[in-house]
Amino acid sequence: MRTIERVADVRAFSRAARRAGRTVGLVPTMGALHAGHLALIRAMVRRTDAVAVSVFVNPTQFAPGEDLDRYPRDLDADRRLAEEAGAHVLFAPPVEEIYPVEPGVWVDPGEPGRILEGAARPTHFRGVLTVVTKLLNAVEPDWVAFGQKDAQQAVLVRRLIDDLLLPVRMWVGPTVRDPDGLALSSRNAYLDAAGRRAAPELYRSLLVGRQLLEAGERRAGEIAARVRARLAATGVLRPDYVAVVAASDLSPVDPVAGRVLLLAAAVLGGVRLIDNLCLEVRGDRVAPSEL
Amino acid sequence: MRTIERVADVRAFSRAARRAGRTVGLVPTMGALHAGHLALIRAMVRRTDAVAVSVFVNPTQFAPGEDLDRYPRDLDADRRLAEEAGAHVLFAPPVEEIYPVEPGVWVDPGEPGRILEGAARPTHFRGVLTVVTKLLNAVEPDWVAFGQKDAQQAVLVRRLIDDLLLPVRMWVGPTVRDPDGLALSSRNAYLDAAGRRAAPELYRSLLVGRQLLEAGERRAGEIAARVRARLAATGVLRPDYVAVVAASDLSPVDPVAGRVLLLAAAVLGGVRLIDNLCLEVRGDRVAPSEL
Repeated sequence: MRTIERVADVRAFSRAARRAGRTVGLVPTMGALHAGHLALIRAMVRRTDAVAVSVFVNPTQFAPGEDLDRYPRDLDADRRLAEEAGAHVLFAPPVEEIYPVEPGVWVDPGEPGRILEGAARPTHFRGVLTVVTKLLNAVEPDWVAFGQKDAQQAVLVRRLIDDLLLPVRMWVGPTVRDPDGLALSSRNAYLDAAGRRAAPELYRSLLVGRQLLEAGERRAGEIAARVRARLAATGVLRPDYVAVVAASDLSPVDPVAGRVLLLAAAVLGGVRLIDNLCLEVRGDRVAPSEL
Repeated sequence: MRTIERVADVRAFSRAARRAGRTVGLVPTMGALHAGHLALIRAMVRRTDAVAVSVFVNPTQFAPGEDLDRYPRDLDADRRLAEEAGAHVLFAPPVEEIYPVEPGVWVDPGEPGRILEGAARPTHFRGVLTVVTKLLNAVEPDWVAFGQKDAQQAVLVRRLIDDLLLPVRMWVGPTVRDPDGLALSSRNAYLDAAGRRAAPELYRSLLVGRQLLEAGERRAGEIAARVRARLAATGVLRPDYVAVVAASDLSPVDPVAGRVLLLAAAVLGGVRLIDNLCLEVRGDRVAPSEL
Protein backbone atom coordinates (compact mmCIF):
# COMPACT_ATOMS: atom_id res chain seq x y z
CA MET A 1 0.00 0.00 0.00
CA ARG A 2 1.25 3.45 -0.96
CA THR A 3 1.27 6.40 1.41
CA ILE A 4 0.59 9.70 -0.37
CA GLU A 5 0.89 13.18 1.10
CA ARG A 6 0.17 15.46 -1.87
CA VAL A 7 -3.14 16.32 -3.51
CA ALA A 8 -1.55 16.18 -6.95
CA ASP A 9 -0.26 12.65 -6.26
CA VAL A 10 -3.52 11.24 -4.95
CA ARG A 11 -5.36 12.77 -7.91
CA ALA A 12 -2.83 11.18 -10.26
CA PHE A 13 -3.40 7.82 -8.56
CA SER A 14 -7.15 8.17 -8.94
CA ARG A 15 -7.04 9.33 -12.56
CA ALA A 16 -4.64 6.57 -13.54
CA ALA A 17 -6.99 4.04 -11.97
CA ARG A 18 -9.96 5.44 -13.82
CA ARG A 19 -8.09 5.61 -17.10
CA ALA A 20 -7.39 1.91 -16.65
CA GLY A 21 -11.13 1.31 -16.29
CA ARG A 22 -11.05 0.87 -12.51
CA THR A 23 -13.43 2.56 -10.07
CA VAL A 24 -12.15 4.48 -7.07
CA GLY A 25 -13.41 4.44 -3.48
CA LEU A 26 -12.59 6.88 -0.70
CA VAL A 27 -12.91 6.44 3.06
CA PRO A 28 -12.31 9.83 4.71
CA THR A 29 -11.13 9.42 8.31
CA MET A 30 -9.38 11.36 11.02
CA GLY A 31 -7.21 8.33 11.70
CA ALA A 32 -7.13 6.36 14.97
CA LEU A 33 -8.77 3.67 12.88
CA HIS A 34 -11.07 1.19 14.60
CA ALA A 35 -13.30 -1.65 13.43
CA GLY A 36 -15.93 0.85 12.26
CA HIS A 37 -13.46 2.42 9.83
CA LEU A 38 -12.24 -1.00 8.75
CA ALA A 39 -15.79 -2.08 7.89
CA LEU A 40 -16.09 1.02 5.69
CA ILE A 41 -12.78 0.22 3.99
CA ARG A 42 -13.87 -3.36 3.33
CA ALA A 43 -17.20 -2.10 1.96
CA MET A 44 -15.28 0.11 -0.48
CA VAL A 45 -12.97 -2.77 -1.40
CA ARG A 46 -16.05 -4.81 -2.31
CA ARG A 47 -17.61 -1.98 -4.36
CA THR A 48 -14.59 -0.41 -6.07
CA ASP A 49 -11.25 -1.40 -7.57
CA ALA A 50 -8.91 1.15 -6.01
CA VAL A 51 -9.48 2.29 -2.44
CA ALA A 52 -7.95 5.34 -0.81
CA VAL A 53 -8.21 5.94 2.94
CA SER A 54 -7.60 9.53 3.92
CA VAL A 55 -6.23 10.28 7.39
CA PHE A 56 -6.57 13.97 8.13
CA VAL A 57 -7.40 15.51 11.50
CA ASN A 58 -9.26 18.49 10.07
CA PRO A 59 -8.59 21.58 12.17
CA THR A 60 -11.57 23.55 10.82
CA GLN A 61 -14.12 21.18 12.33
CA PHE A 62 -12.73 21.74 15.83
CA ALA A 63 -13.65 24.87 17.76
CA PRO A 64 -11.05 26.59 19.94
CA GLY A 65 -10.88 24.67 23.21
CA GLU A 66 -12.00 21.38 21.67
CA ASP A 67 -9.74 18.33 21.44
CA LEU A 68 -7.80 19.07 18.23
CA ASP A 69 -4.44 18.88 19.98
CA ARG A 70 -5.07 15.70 21.92
CA TYR A 71 -7.07 13.90 19.20
CA PRO A 72 -5.50 10.42 18.99
CA ARG A 73 -2.92 10.06 16.20
CA ASP A 74 -1.06 6.89 15.21
CA LEU A 75 -0.27 6.89 11.51
CA ASP A 76 1.82 3.72 11.61
CA ALA A 77 -1.01 1.74 13.16
CA ASP A 78 -3.50 3.33 10.72
CA ARG A 79 -1.32 2.34 7.78
CA ARG A 80 -1.12 -1.27 8.95
CA LEU A 81 -4.85 -1.52 9.62
CA ALA A 82 -5.87 0.13 6.35
CA GLU A 83 -3.59 -2.19 4.41
CA GLU A 84 -4.94 -5.28 6.16
CA ALA A 85 -8.47 -4.16 5.32
CA GLY A 86 -7.50 -4.01 1.65
CA ALA A 87 -6.89 -0.29 0.99
CA HIS A 88 -4.53 0.60 -1.85
CA VAL A 89 -3.53 4.10 -0.79
CA LEU A 90 -3.26 5.93 2.50
CA PHE A 91 -3.70 9.63 1.79
CA ALA A 92 -2.21 11.46 4.78
CA PRO A 93 -1.73 15.09 3.78
CA PRO A 94 -0.09 17.61 6.09
CA VAL A 95 -2.38 20.46 7.13
CA GLU A 96 -0.75 22.94 4.74
CA GLU A 97 -1.54 20.67 1.79
CA ILE A 98 -5.28 20.89 2.47
CA TYR A 99 -5.22 24.45 3.80
CA PRO A 100 -2.35 26.20 1.97
CA VAL A 101 -3.95 29.51 2.97
CA GLU A 102 -6.45 30.50 5.65
CA PRO A 103 -9.79 29.13 4.41
CA GLY A 104 -11.78 31.82 2.61
CA VAL A 105 -14.55 29.93 0.81
CA TRP A 106 -16.67 27.71 3.06
CA VAL A 107 -19.22 25.07 2.26
CA ASP A 108 -22.12 25.95 4.54
CA PRO A 109 -24.63 23.27 5.57
CA GLY A 110 -27.40 25.76 6.33
CA GLU A 111 -29.95 25.23 9.09
CA PRO A 112 -29.57 21.40 9.44
CA GLY A 113 -25.94 22.06 10.34
CA ARG A 114 -26.90 24.33 13.21
CA ILE A 115 -29.09 21.92 15.19
CA LEU A 116 -28.18 18.88 17.35
CA GLU A 117 -24.37 18.56 17.16
CA GLY A 118 -24.29 21.92 15.39
CA ALA A 119 -25.98 23.63 18.32
CA ALA A 120 -23.17 22.48 20.62
CA ARG A 121 -20.50 22.96 17.96
CA PRO A 122 -21.60 25.90 15.74
CA THR A 123 -18.74 25.83 13.20
CA HIS A 124 -18.30 22.03 13.21
CA PHE A 125 -20.30 21.03 10.14
CA ARG A 126 -19.09 23.97 8.08
CA GLY A 127 -15.60 22.57 8.68
CA VAL A 128 -16.74 19.03 7.90
CA LEU A 129 -18.49 19.89 4.64
CA THR A 130 -15.61 22.09 3.52
CA VAL A 131 -12.98 19.42 4.11
CA VAL A 132 -15.14 16.66 2.63
CA THR A 133 -15.57 18.78 -0.50
CA LYS A 134 -11.81 19.30 -0.65
CA LEU A 135 -11.07 15.60 -0.17
CA LEU A 136 -13.64 14.63 -2.81
CA ASN A 137 -12.12 17.14 -5.23
CA ALA A 138 -8.62 15.88 -4.46
CA VAL A 139 -9.37 12.17 -4.86
CA GLU A 140 -12.31 12.34 -7.32
CA PRO A 141 -13.68 8.98 -6.18
CA ASP A 142 -16.64 7.11 -7.63
CA TRP A 143 -17.75 6.08 -4.13
CA VAL A 144 -17.23 7.60 -0.72
CA ALA A 145 -17.98 5.90 2.60
CA PHE A 146 -19.15 7.35 5.90
CA GLY A 147 -20.28 5.72 9.13
CA GLN A 148 -23.79 5.90 10.53
CA LYS A 149 -22.34 6.57 13.97
CA ASP A 150 -21.97 10.22 12.92
CA ALA A 151 -25.49 10.29 11.54
CA GLN A 152 -25.92 14.03 11.24
CA GLN A 153 -22.61 14.22 9.38
CA ALA A 154 -23.76 11.47 7.02
CA VAL A 155 -27.08 13.23 6.33
CA LEU A 156 -25.32 16.54 5.69
CA VAL A 157 -22.70 14.98 3.42
CA ARG A 158 -25.44 13.29 1.42
CA ARG A 159 -27.12 16.68 1.11
CA LEU A 160 -23.79 18.22 0.07
CA ILE A 161 -23.37 15.61 -2.66
CA ASP A 162 -26.94 16.07 -3.89
CA ASP A 163 -27.04 19.86 -3.66
CA LEU A 164 -23.68 20.56 -5.26
CA LEU A 165 -24.09 17.80 -7.88
CA LEU A 166 -20.85 16.18 -6.73
CA PRO A 167 -20.15 13.26 -9.08
CA VAL A 168 -19.81 10.60 -6.39
CA ARG A 169 -21.99 7.94 -4.79
CA MET A 170 -22.18 7.58 -1.03
CA TRP A 171 -22.17 4.48 1.15
CA VAL A 172 -23.21 4.77 4.78
CA GLY A 173 -21.94 1.84 6.82
CA PRO A 174 -23.84 0.65 9.90
CA THR A 175 -22.48 1.54 13.33
CA VAL A 176 -20.03 -1.02 14.68
CA ARG A 177 -20.37 -1.65 18.41
CA ASP A 178 -18.40 -3.30 21.15
CA PRO A 179 -20.09 -6.40 22.59
CA ASP A 180 -21.59 -4.31 25.40
CA GLY A 181 -23.24 -1.98 22.86
CA LEU A 182 -20.89 1.00 22.94
CA ALA A 183 -20.55 2.49 19.47
CA LEU A 184 -16.94 2.49 18.34
CA SER A 185 -15.38 5.94 18.27
CA SER A 186 -11.82 7.16 18.27
CA ARG A 187 -12.84 9.37 21.18
CA ASN A 188 -13.66 6.34 23.35
CA ALA A 189 -9.92 6.35 24.04
CA TYR A 190 -10.53 9.39 26.26
CA LEU A 191 -12.66 7.35 28.67
CA ASP A 192 -11.16 6.11 31.91
CA ALA A 193 -12.05 2.65 33.22
CA ALA A 194 -15.15 3.82 35.08
CA GLY A 195 -16.25 5.89 32.11
CA ARG A 196 -15.79 2.96 29.76
CA ARG A 197 -18.00 0.80 32.03
CA ALA A 198 -20.74 3.46 32.06
CA ALA A 199 -20.54 4.45 28.39
CA PRO A 200 -22.84 1.69 27.00
CA GLU A 201 -25.68 3.34 28.93
CA LEU A 202 -25.95 5.76 26.00
CA TYR A 203 -26.87 2.93 23.64
CA ARG A 204 -29.12 1.29 26.24
CA SER A 205 -30.99 4.58 26.65
CA LEU A 206 -31.58 4.73 22.90
CA LEU A 207 -32.96 1.17 23.09
CA VAL A 208 -35.49 2.46 25.65
CA GLY A 209 -36.66 4.86 22.95
CA ARG A 210 -36.93 2.05 20.44
CA GLN A 211 -38.93 -0.05 22.89
CA LEU A 212 -41.33 2.85 23.38
CA LEU A 213 -41.80 3.07 19.61
CA GLU A 214 -42.34 -0.69 19.44
CA ALA A 215 -44.94 -0.35 22.20
CA GLY A 216 -46.84 2.16 20.05
CA GLU A 217 -45.62 5.48 21.41
CA ARG A 218 -45.47 8.03 18.56
CA ARG A 219 -45.05 11.33 20.42
CA ALA A 220 -41.51 12.51 19.61
CA GLY A 221 -41.31 14.67 22.73
CA GLU A 222 -42.37 11.85 25.02
CA ILE A 223 -39.81 9.46 23.52
CA ALA A 224 -37.03 12.04 23.81
CA ALA A 225 -37.99 12.85 27.39
CA ARG A 226 -37.97 9.18 28.41
CA VAL A 227 -34.57 8.56 26.80
CA ARG A 228 -33.24 11.70 28.44
CA ALA A 229 -34.59 10.58 31.83
CA ARG A 230 -32.95 7.18 31.38
CA LEU A 231 -29.61 8.89 30.61
CA ALA A 232 -29.90 11.21 33.59
CA ALA A 233 -30.82 8.29 35.85
CA THR A 234 -27.38 6.80 35.25
CA GLY A 235 -26.02 9.59 37.43
CA VAL A 236 -22.86 9.75 35.32
CA LEU A 237 -24.06 10.56 31.80
CA ARG A 238 -25.13 14.19 31.46
CA PRO A 239 -27.58 14.37 28.53
CA ASP A 240 -27.05 17.13 25.96
CA TYR A 241 -29.71 16.52 23.33
CA VAL A 242 -32.09 13.68 22.60
CA ALA A 243 -34.20 13.98 19.46
CA VAL A 244 -36.29 12.06 16.97
CA VAL A 245 -35.98 13.55 13.48
CA ALA A 246 -36.55 12.60 9.84
CA ALA A 247 -33.57 10.61 8.57
CA SER A 248 -33.74 12.37 5.20
CA ASP A 249 -33.20 15.93 6.36
CA LEU A 250 -33.16 16.01 10.19
CA SER A 251 -36.48 17.88 10.29
CA PRO A 252 -38.82 17.33 13.26
CA VAL A 253 -41.29 14.41 13.02
CA ASP A 254 -44.21 14.40 15.41
CA PRO A 255 -46.00 12.05 15.49
CA VAL A 256 -43.06 9.80 14.63
CA ALA A 257 -43.45 8.17 11.20
CA GLY A 258 -41.31 7.13 8.27
CA ARG A 259 -37.55 6.67 8.36
CA VAL A 260 -36.34 8.40 11.50
CA LEU A 261 -33.20 8.92 13.52
CA LEU A 262 -33.28 8.68 17.30
CA LEU A 263 -30.19 10.65 18.29
CA ALA A 264 -28.56 11.38 21.60
CA ALA A 265 -25.46 13.15 22.87
CA ALA A 266 -24.21 12.99 26.43
CA VAL A 267 -21.13 13.97 28.36
CA LEU A 268 -19.43 11.36 30.51
CA GLY A 269 -16.54 12.51 32.68
CA GLY A 270 -15.74 15.36 30.31
CA VAL A 271 -15.96 13.14 27.20
CA ARG A 272 -18.73 13.92 24.75
CA LEU A 273 -20.36 10.78 23.32
CA ILE A 274 -22.94 10.54 20.52
CA ASP A 275 -24.99 7.63 19.24
CA ASN A 276 -28.13 7.00 17.23
CA LEU A 277 -30.58 4.45 15.90
CA CYS A 278 -32.09 4.60 12.42
CA LEU A 279 -35.59 3.14 12.39
CA GLU A 280 -38.35 2.69 9.85
CA VAL A 281 -41.73 3.40 11.43
CA ARG A 282 -44.69 2.33 9.30
CA GLY A 283 -48.04 2.14 11.07
CA ASP A 284 -47.57 -0.34 13.92
CA ARG A 285 -44.28 -1.65 12.63
CA VAL A 286 -40.86 -0.50 13.78
CA ALA A 287 -37.82 -1.95 12.01
CA PRO A 288 -34.12 -1.11 11.92
CA SER A 289 -33.25 0.84 8.79
CA GLU A 290 -30.17 1.93 6.89
CA LEU A 291 -29.29 5.59 6.88
CA MET B 1 -23.70 21.37 -31.92
CA ARG B 2 -25.74 19.41 -29.41
CA THR B 3 -28.14 21.04 -26.98
CA ILE B 4 -28.22 19.23 -23.62
CA GLU B 5 -30.66 19.86 -20.78
CA ARG B 6 -29.73 17.16 -18.25
CA VAL B 7 -26.78 17.02 -15.84
CA ALA B 8 -26.38 13.30 -16.48
CA ASP B 9 -26.15 13.92 -20.23
CA VAL B 10 -23.62 16.74 -20.08
CA ARG B 11 -21.50 14.67 -17.67
CA ALA B 12 -21.68 11.73 -20.09
CA PHE B 13 -20.55 14.03 -22.93
CA SER B 14 -17.63 15.28 -20.85
CA ARG B 15 -16.57 11.84 -19.64
CA ALA B 16 -16.76 10.37 -23.13
CA ALA B 17 -14.54 13.20 -24.39
CA ARG B 18 -12.00 12.63 -21.66
CA ARG B 19 -12.03 8.87 -22.15
CA ALA B 20 -11.16 9.57 -25.77
CA GLY B 21 -8.19 11.64 -24.60
CA ARG B 22 -9.79 15.01 -25.28
CA THR B 23 -9.81 17.94 -22.87
CA VAL B 24 -13.01 19.71 -21.96
CA GLY B 25 -13.68 23.45 -21.64
CA LEU B 26 -16.66 25.15 -20.05
CA VAL B 27 -17.94 28.69 -20.54
CA PRO B 28 -20.65 29.35 -17.93
CA THR B 29 -23.05 32.09 -19.06
CA MET B 30 -26.50 33.41 -18.32
CA GLY B 31 -27.18 33.55 -22.06
CA ALA B 32 -27.89 36.72 -24.07
CA LEU B 33 -24.47 36.01 -25.55
CA HIS B 34 -22.42 38.94 -26.81
CA ALA B 35 -18.91 39.34 -28.23
CA GLY B 36 -17.43 39.06 -24.73
CA HIS B 37 -18.89 35.57 -24.30
CA LEU B 38 -17.85 34.63 -27.83
CA ALA B 39 -14.24 35.60 -27.10
CA LEU B 40 -14.34 33.29 -24.07
CA ILE B 41 -15.78 30.46 -26.17
CA ARG B 42 -13.07 30.93 -28.81
CA ALA B 43 -10.40 30.97 -26.08
CA MET B 44 -11.72 27.62 -24.81
CA VAL B 45 -11.83 26.26 -28.37
CA ARG B 46 -8.15 27.12 -28.71
CA ARG B 47 -7.24 25.54 -25.35
CA THR B 48 -9.46 22.45 -25.22
CA ASP B 49 -10.91 19.83 -27.53
CA ALA B 50 -14.56 19.76 -26.46
CA VAL B 51 -16.25 23.00 -25.41
CA ALA B 52 -19.52 23.28 -23.53
CA VAL B 53 -21.30 26.61 -23.14
CA SER B 54 -23.80 26.64 -20.32
CA VAL B 55 -26.77 28.98 -20.50
CA PHE B 56 -28.47 29.22 -17.12
CA VAL B 57 -30.06 32.30 -15.61
CA ASN B 58 -29.26 31.37 -12.03
CA PRO B 59 -32.09 32.44 -9.73
CA THR B 60 -30.03 32.24 -6.53
CA GLN B 61 -27.72 35.08 -7.56
CA PHE B 62 -30.65 37.48 -7.94
CA ALA B 63 -32.22 39.09 -4.88
CA PRO B 64 -35.98 39.62 -4.70
CA GLY B 65 -36.78 42.75 -6.69
CA GLU B 66 -33.77 42.38 -8.98
CA ASP B 67 -34.08 41.67 -12.70
CA LEU B 68 -34.41 37.86 -12.72
CA ASP B 69 -37.74 37.97 -14.56
CA ARG B 70 -36.75 40.46 -17.21
CA TYR B 71 -33.16 39.22 -17.70
CA PRO B 72 -32.76 38.91 -21.49
CA ARG B 73 -33.31 35.37 -22.80
CA ASP B 74 -32.92 34.18 -26.40
CA LEU B 75 -31.82 30.56 -26.49
CA ASP B 76 -32.10 30.24 -30.28
CA ALA B 77 -29.75 33.17 -30.84
CA ASP B 78 -27.40 31.85 -28.13
CA ARG B 79 -27.31 28.45 -29.81
CA ARG B 80 -26.45 29.97 -33.17
CA LEU B 81 -23.74 32.24 -31.74
CA ALA B 82 -22.17 29.53 -29.57
CA GLU B 83 -22.02 27.17 -32.55
CA GLU B 84 -20.45 29.82 -34.80
CA ALA B 85 -17.81 30.44 -32.12
CA GLY B 86 -16.93 26.73 -32.19
CA ALA B 87 -18.72 25.30 -29.13
CA HIS B 88 -19.62 21.61 -29.24
CA VAL B 89 -22.40 21.55 -26.67
CA LEU B 90 -24.92 24.06 -25.39
CA PHE B 91 -25.87 23.01 -21.85
CA ALA B 92 -29.19 24.73 -21.11
CA PRO B 93 -30.69 23.05 -18.06
CA PRO B 94 -34.13 23.97 -16.74
CA VAL B 95 -34.08 25.46 -13.24
CA GLU B 96 -35.34 22.22 -11.65
CA GLU B 97 -32.36 20.32 -13.08
CA ILE B 98 -29.87 22.53 -11.22
CA TYR B 99 -32.11 23.10 -8.18
CA PRO B 100 -34.24 19.96 -7.82
CA VAL B 101 -34.91 21.03 -4.24
CA GLU B 102 -34.63 24.33 -2.40
CA PRO B 103 -30.87 24.91 -1.98
CA GLY B 104 -29.66 23.74 1.44
CA VAL B 105 -25.88 23.67 1.16
CA TRP B 106 -24.31 26.96 0.01
CA VAL B 107 -20.80 27.77 -1.10
CA ASP B 108 -20.00 30.90 0.86
CA PRO B 109 -17.37 33.35 -0.41
CA GLY B 110 -16.67 34.84 3.01
CA GLU B 111 -15.76 38.51 3.53
CA PRO B 112 -14.53 39.26 -0.05
CA GLY B 113 -18.04 38.36 -1.21
CA ARG B 114 -19.63 40.94 1.06
CA ILE B 115 -17.80 44.06 -0.21
CA LEU B 116 -18.17 46.04 -3.46
CA GLU B 117 -20.89 44.27 -5.49
CA GLY B 118 -21.59 42.12 -2.43
CA ALA B 119 -22.41 45.18 -0.34
CA ALA B 120 -25.11 46.18 -2.80
CA ARG B 121 -26.17 42.57 -3.44
CA PRO B 122 -25.58 40.62 -0.17
CA THR B 123 -26.57 37.12 -1.38
CA HIS B 124 -25.27 37.55 -4.93
CA PHE B 125 -21.87 35.86 -4.70
CA ARG B 126 -23.13 33.04 -2.52
CA GLY B 127 -25.49 32.27 -5.39
CA VAL B 128 -22.71 32.66 -7.96
CA LEU B 129 -20.22 30.39 -6.18
CA THR B 130 -22.89 27.80 -5.48
CA VAL B 131 -24.04 27.60 -9.09
CA VAL B 132 -20.48 27.67 -10.44
CA THR B 133 -19.62 24.74 -8.16
CA LYS B 134 -22.68 22.88 -9.41
CA LEU B 135 -21.86 23.58 -13.06
CA LEU B 136 -18.23 22.51 -12.57
CA ASN B 137 -19.40 19.31 -10.87
CA ALA B 138 -21.90 18.68 -13.65
CA VAL B 139 -19.52 19.23 -16.56
CA GLU B 140 -16.18 18.30 -14.91
CA PRO B 141 -14.18 20.47 -17.32
CA ASP B 142 -10.40 20.77 -17.53
CA TRP B 143 -10.72 24.53 -18.15
CA VAL B 144 -13.37 27.07 -17.27
CA ALA B 145 -13.57 30.62 -18.66
CA PHE B 146 -14.85 33.81 -17.06
CA GLY B 147 -14.74 37.44 -18.20
CA GLN B 148 -12.75 40.18 -16.53
CA LYS B 149 -15.76 42.49 -16.83
CA ASP B 150 -17.15 40.79 -13.69
CA ALA B 151 -13.82 41.10 -11.92
CA GLN B 152 -14.98 40.42 -8.38
CA GLN B 153 -16.75 37.30 -9.61
CA ALA B 154 -13.56 36.16 -11.35
CA VAL B 155 -11.46 36.73 -8.24
CA LEU B 156 -13.97 34.85 -6.07
CA VAL B 157 -14.26 31.94 -8.50
CA ARG B 158 -10.48 31.64 -8.60
CA ARG B 159 -10.52 31.56 -4.82
CA LEU B 160 -13.28 28.94 -4.91
CA ILE B 161 -11.21 26.75 -7.22
CA ASP B 162 -8.08 27.15 -5.10
CA ASP B 163 -9.77 26.79 -1.72
CA LEU B 164 -11.93 23.78 -2.53
CA LEU B 165 -9.20 22.09 -4.62
CA LEU B 166 -11.52 21.96 -7.62
CA PRO B 167 -9.70 20.04 -10.36
CA VAL B 168 -10.06 22.69 -13.06
CA ARG B 169 -7.94 25.51 -14.52
CA MET B 170 -9.39 28.96 -14.99
CA TRP B 171 -9.05 31.36 -17.90
CA VAL B 172 -10.05 35.01 -17.40
CA GLY B 173 -10.70 36.74 -20.73
CA PRO B 174 -10.15 40.50 -21.11
CA THR B 175 -13.16 42.78 -21.18
CA VAL B 176 -14.58 43.29 -24.65
CA ARG B 177 -15.74 46.86 -25.32
CA ASP B 178 -17.83 48.67 -27.87
CA PRO B 179 -15.82 51.18 -29.95
CA ASP B 180 -16.88 53.99 -27.60
CA GLY B 181 -15.46 52.11 -24.61
CA LEU B 182 -18.60 50.67 -23.04
CA ALA B 183 -17.90 47.19 -21.63
CA LEU B 184 -20.18 44.62 -23.23
CA SER B 185 -22.85 43.32 -20.87
CA SER B 186 -26.14 41.57 -21.45
CA ARG B 187 -27.65 44.22 -19.20
CA ASN B 188 -26.70 46.99 -21.66
CA ALA B 189 -29.92 45.96 -23.42
CA TYR B 190 -31.81 47.68 -20.60
CA LEU B 191 -30.38 51.10 -21.60
CA ASP B 192 -32.52 53.50 -23.62
CA ALA B 193 -30.91 55.60 -26.37
CA ALA B 194 -29.88 58.43 -24.04
CA GLY B 195 -28.56 55.95 -21.48
CA ARG B 196 -26.56 54.15 -24.12
CA ARG B 197 -24.96 57.46 -25.18
CA ALA B 198 -24.02 58.28 -21.58
CA ALA B 199 -22.90 54.78 -20.54
CA PRO B 200 -19.27 55.01 -21.82
CA GLU B 201 -18.69 57.69 -19.18
CA LEU B 202 -18.20 54.83 -16.71
CA TYR B 203 -15.16 53.58 -18.62
CA ARG B 204 -13.91 57.16 -19.22
CA SER B 205 -14.09 57.81 -15.49
CA LEU B 206 -11.95 54.73 -14.83
CA LEU B 207 -9.43 56.08 -17.35
CA VAL B 208 -9.23 59.23 -15.23
CA GLY B 209 -8.13 56.99 -12.37
CA ARG B 210 -5.51 55.34 -14.56
CA GLN B 211 -4.20 58.72 -15.67
CA LEU B 212 -3.83 59.74 -12.02
CA LEU B 213 -1.82 56.58 -11.35
CA GLU B 214 0.30 57.27 -14.43
CA ALA B 215 0.91 60.79 -13.12
CA GLY B 216 2.25 59.32 -9.89
CA GLU B 217 -0.78 59.47 -7.59
CA ARG B 218 -0.67 56.48 -5.22
CA ARG B 219 -3.30 57.39 -2.60
CA ALA B 220 -6.16 54.94 -3.14
CA GLY B 221 -8.71 57.26 -1.53
CA GLU B 222 -7.73 60.21 -3.70
CA ILE B 223 -7.96 58.15 -6.89
CA ALA B 224 -11.36 56.75 -5.90
CA ALA B 225 -12.63 60.21 -4.98
CA ARG B 226 -11.54 61.70 -8.32
CA VAL B 227 -13.14 58.87 -10.32
CA ARG B 228 -16.29 59.22 -8.26
CA ALA B 229 -16.34 63.00 -8.87
CA ARG B 230 -15.91 62.42 -12.59
CA LEU B 231 -18.87 60.00 -12.56
CA ALA B 232 -21.04 62.39 -10.58
CA ALA B 233 -20.08 65.26 -12.90
CA THR B 234 -21.82 63.45 -15.76
CA GLY B 235 -25.08 64.34 -14.08
CA VAL B 236 -26.63 61.07 -15.24
CA LEU B 237 -24.42 58.36 -13.74
CA ARG B 238 -25.01 57.94 -10.00
CA PRO B 239 -21.85 56.39 -8.51
CA ASP B 240 -22.27 53.44 -6.13
CA TYR B 241 -18.74 52.38 -5.25
CA VAL B 242 -15.33 53.25 -6.64
CA ALA B 243 -12.38 51.35 -5.19
CA VAL B 244 -8.77 50.37 -5.76
CA VAL B 245 -8.04 46.90 -4.34
CA ALA B 246 -5.51 44.09 -4.68
CA ALA B 247 -6.35 41.97 -7.72
CA SER B 248 -5.42 38.78 -5.86
CA ASP B 249 -7.93 39.00 -3.03
CA LEU B 250 -9.76 42.36 -3.23
CA SER B 251 -8.06 43.61 -0.06
CA PRO B 252 -7.40 47.36 0.33
CA VAL B 253 -4.12 48.70 -1.11
CA ASP B 254 -2.96 52.11 0.06
CA PRO B 255 -0.59 53.35 -1.22
CA VAL B 256 -1.47 51.65 -4.48
CA ALA B 257 1.13 49.05 -5.52
CA GLY B 258 1.27 45.70 -7.23
CA ARG B 259 -1.46 44.18 -9.37
CA VAL B 260 -4.62 46.14 -8.60
CA LEU B 261 -8.20 46.46 -9.73
CA LEU B 262 -9.77 49.88 -10.15
CA LEU B 263 -13.47 49.08 -9.90
CA ALA B 264 -16.59 51.18 -10.23
CA ALA B 265 -20.33 50.67 -10.17
CA ALA B 266 -22.88 53.28 -11.13
CA VAL B 267 -26.57 53.49 -11.81
CA LEU B 268 -27.76 55.06 -15.05
CA GLY B 269 -31.49 55.54 -15.51
CA GLY B 270 -32.25 52.64 -13.20
CA VAL B 271 -29.67 50.34 -14.85
CA ARG B 272 -26.74 49.25 -12.71
CA LEU B 273 -23.46 49.20 -14.64
CA ILE B 274 -20.05 47.90 -13.48
CA ASP B 275 -16.62 48.13 -15.04
CA ASN B 276 -12.98 47.84 -14.01
CA LEU B 277 -9.37 48.13 -15.05
CA CYS B 278 -6.65 45.70 -13.98
CA LEU B 279 -3.30 47.44 -13.67
CA GLU B 280 0.20 46.50 -12.63
CA VAL B 281 1.77 49.26 -10.54
CA ARG B 282 5.53 48.87 -10.00
CA GLY B 283 7.36 51.95 -8.75
CA ASP B 284 6.73 54.66 -11.35
CA ARG B 285 5.39 52.27 -13.94
CA VAL B 286 1.71 51.58 -14.56
CA ALA B 287 0.81 48.92 -17.12
CA PRO B 288 -2.36 47.07 -18.08
CA SER B 289 -2.44 43.61 -16.54
CA GLU B 290 -4.43 40.41 -16.86
CA LEU B 291 -6.71 39.44 -14.04
